[in-house]
Amino acid sequence: MEARHPKSSKTIMTDLVLPSETNPLNNLFGGELLARMDRAASIAARRHSRRIVVTASVNHVAFNRSIPVGSVVTVEANISRAFKSSMEIYIDVWIEDRESGRRDKANEAIYTFVAVDDTSRPVQIPELIPETDLEKERFEGALRRRQLSLVLAGKMKPNEATELKALFFD
Amino acid sequence: MEARHPKSSKTIMTDLVLPSETNPLNNLFGGELLARMDRAASIAARRHSRRIVVTASVNHVAFNRSIPVGSVVTVEANISRAFKSSMEIYIDVWIEDRESGRRDKANEAIYTFVAVDDTSRPVQIPELIPETDLEKERFEGALRRRQLSLVLAGKMKPNEATELKALFFD
Amino acid sequence: MEARHPKSSKTIMTDLVLPSETNPLNNLFGGELLARMDRAASIAARRHSRRIVVTASVNHVAFNRSIPVGSVVTVEANISRAFKSSMEIYIDVWIEDRESGRRDKANEAIYTFVAVDDTSRPVQIPELIPETDLEKERFEGALRRRQLSLVLAGKMKPNEATELKALFFD
Amino acid sequence: MEARHPKSSKTIMTDLVLPSETNPLNNLFGGELLARMDRAASIAARRHSRRIVVTASVNHVAFNRSIPVGSVVTVEANISRAFKSSMEIYIDVWIEDRESGRRDKANEAIYTFVAVDDTSRPVQIPELIPETDLEKERFEGALRRRQLSLVLAGKMKPNEATELKALFFD
Amino acid sequence: MEARHPKSSKTIMTDLVLPSETNPLNNLFGGELLARMDRAASIAARRHSRRIVVTASVNHVAFNRSIPVGSVVTVEANISRAFKSSMEIYIDVWIEDRESGRRDKANEAIYTFVAVDDTSRPVQIPELIPETDLEKERFEGALRRRQLSLVLAGKMKPNEATELKALFFD
Amino acid sequence: MEARHPKSSKTIMTDLVLPSETNPLNNLFGGELLARMDRAASIAARRHSRRIVVTASVNHVAFNRSIPVGSVVTVEANISRAFKSSMEIYIDVWIEDRESGRRDKANEAIYTFVAVDDTSRPVQIPELIPETDLEKERFEGALRRRQLSLVLAGKMKPNEATELKALFFD
Repeated sequence: MEARHPKSSKTIMTDLVLPSETNPLNNLFGGELLARMDRAASIAARRHSRRIVVTASVNHVAFNRSIPVGSVVTVEANISRAFKSSMEIYIDVWIEDRESGRRDKANEAIYTFVAVDDTSRPVQIPELIPETDLEKERFEGALRRRQLSLVLAGKMKPNEATELKALFFD
Repeated sequence: MEARHPKSSKTIMTDLVLPSETNPLNNLFGGELLARMDRAASIAARRHSRRIVVTASVNHVAFNRSIPVGSVVTVEANISRAFKSSMEIYIDVWIEDRESGRRDKANEAIYTFVAVDDTSRPVQIPELIPETDLEKERFEGALRRRQLSLVLAGKMKPNEATELKALFFD
Repeated sequence: MEARHPKSSKTIMTDLVLPSETNPLNNLFGGELLARMDRAASIAARRHSRRIVVTASVNHVAFNRSIPVGSVVTVEANISRAFKSSMEIYIDVWIEDRESGRRDKANEAIYTFVAVDDTSRPVQIPELIPETDLEKERFEGALRRRQLSLVLAGKMKPNEATELKALFFD
Repeated sequence: MEARHPKSSKTIMTDLVLPSETNPLNNLFGGELLARMDRAASIAARRHSRRIVVTASVNHVAFNRSIPVGSVVTVEANISRAFKSSMEIYIDVWIEDRESGRRDKANEAIYTFVAVDDTSRPVQIPELIPETDLEKERFEGALRRRQLSLVLAGKMKPNEATELKALFFD
Repeated sequence: MEARHPKSSKTIMTDLVLPSETNPLNNLFGGELLARMDRAASIAARRHSRRIVVTASVNHVAFNRSIPVGSVVTVEANISRAFKSSMEIYIDVWIEDRESGRRDKANEAIYTFVAVDDTSRPVQIPELIPETDLEKERFEGALRRRQLSLVLAGKMKPNEATELKALFFD
Repeated sequence: MEARHPKSSKTIMTDLVLPSETNPLNNLFGGELLARMDRAASIAARRHSRRIVVTASVNHVAFNRSIPVGSVVTVEANISRAFKSSMEIYIDVWIEDRESGRRDKANEAIYTFVAVDDTSRPVQIPELIPETDLEKERFEGALRRRQLSLVLAGKMKPNEATELKALFFD
């Protein structure tokens, strides 16, 4: 199974915020953005693994900016690291201003997907080889996030989470 | 502003999994479940604060069970702690088997919402007083999760996150 | 087949009124409310019978209150009586005011569902035993409504509808 | 205000049954059909009154035939009688077989709409003059149904519902 | 296979413009109108051929009038000519003013559908015999449009498109 | 007003084919693809003009390949030429095979959008300067297509459509 680069599975989903997706302040519902990010991430995961993929987890997501109705929103998904059968996908969300054309970062999220066969059993996937500096940085971070996730799920003891623990003593 | 109990804002959303919400394995898309949980959580947050509320963040969410098309899904949202203008909402998801009537836990998630006025500025909200054992346990946990969230956002130094740090030395 | 109480199939569906579900006065379309009530009723019917269920009829429904966009609407469905393979389901709809938190009755409807097997043939279902006063009152009314329904469908002569006829001479 | 004939407001809505509107047996959800009928009826009511219209009530609706996914469904709405500010609309639903081209009656329903002004207050509407035999028959029936509706709502005593009462002694 | 008249497959789809289908000017999205026209055309094509039908092409469509939210839109589809296994469908779109009741032409489009069997292979369909003057005019035009379509697709040389070429010398 | 290159408004919309968007053969409805292409084209038009844009016309679109449910579809929109206030947008549609990762061209379409102000009046837009060979080829073709469109709309005499006419004599 040949290793792949992040760019071969990069996924770009640009679309409008439709009136049916807004809250009483006329901004995109948080839940709708989560659904779009999930779809983009699933496509990236599928492109990397060439398998059926299912959402395994969503890391902490912060909503710092509201996104008004009619906005053009770009959701970009990149595989940040591949484990045995799971992948971490890093998602960046941009909105752009119609008049100035300026693009601003609106959000960031991390999803994990698992590749499965037709009977829902995990299957092995290709390795990921990061190329750019940003890709390398996110590749490193993915290991710490996986440890945190295992600790929170009670599947790893905090003391064994070497990379994660280091964070608290730097 | 009078303090309130969790039960006064408890929100129950039972609905079917519709065919339009499923992935190629005929299970509910992870993203659709995130959207339902967001709506249920926003109603609980609104019931507690009696204000307009917006999603601030979603904590780590794991998807351990797939939910097939046609399932009856119950999303239950409870406020676990109220801070100055933000609330942590704990969400439990259940699915039930048609033939046996058995209910199984399918998921769990934690969302944070902020109460705002018409101009999107945060406003103060009532305190929450937990009553049952489970409510008290989640109320305690909410403080640690808030510290973790502040640390991850770079707004608190890991060394100052007293409750959180304790976790790594027990 | 063991008889069941209404509370074992009670179904609560709380959700927002989304912008896509409104008429030109920005209120929930009557038809959308009918669809939500149908879904809630079908879940209650399924919980009681543990079978596939299909809508058989909708009794007279009055729309006395308009429900504005952004409202929190609670649809509550309770089995009011079980016949051989059909069930009458009583639906109460509540809306709540964000600022005061007050809940008001917005609607009431009665649906009939039939339990069927995989080939769409009616199957027998458990009896229903009402417990509270309201449950008992609705249980009694269900018989009169069934007679009215049979009379309107031309399957029963008005003179044979004993309970129904009595109404006109009290 | 000039009286109008039913044909000037007749409304025909032919559309497919989409996969997202089906239940586990792959038939159209009862609730979805109710929503389509409500939209067709509202257009007929609006054409007759040339006003904003809101659903006032739905009479007894029976679902005798299931409608499979992919079917072509025709919903036809005709005003059957105009009262001071409300209208009764009679709805006939047809499905057609692709191969033989045969059209079968799948359903029938009666909705009541009220014409209102911008502030939701009822306004007067034109009279309806039935022309064909079927239109005349439904025009007569509309009065009895209105009495039944008032009796069920507790706004008319059963003894005063002359036309309705007659039914039970014929 | 018996020839059929256009009226036996005429399809009328009257429906409201819902808030979820509008652009930032609160008018119906062009894309949504294209989707409705496609559904209406597919029903007409299916009624004529009594087969499964798939969209083959859309001719030039101009959007001269915007259609505001809440409008009543009527999409009318008529077969204009049947070829071996494909049909040209002419679509007229009308909107009506609530207050005056006046109907105005809002759009016009031409779709081509192909009748296929379960394995997606084209099958033969009945001939179409135009009756009214408008039907005859559109029947004639259909041949020129088919030639233009073949020329644009590179399947016919411009010089062989006799009827089409004539246009440029009249 | 500064001229712009096509790459500054290129729009990529990658998304799944959802079950709710399919016909009886389980392929994407032609009408749904038209709607997606319209949204992608409108974003490209808006990025080039930095104005509100509305669909003016859709050129001939052929559907040569069916797109099955669950496919990953990429809609790519590029401005091919800017006129005074209107823009021609060229749309390429790709589907990819999950297992081999191969991308195939599934469709091609040409939309025209007009930039307008808040009162729906056309406004001037920046010029477009093509760079690559494909961009230059489509830029040239756009003029001929505009002439054809004016001829079909009866706004230009066939004899005056110089570039278009040339086609028939080469």
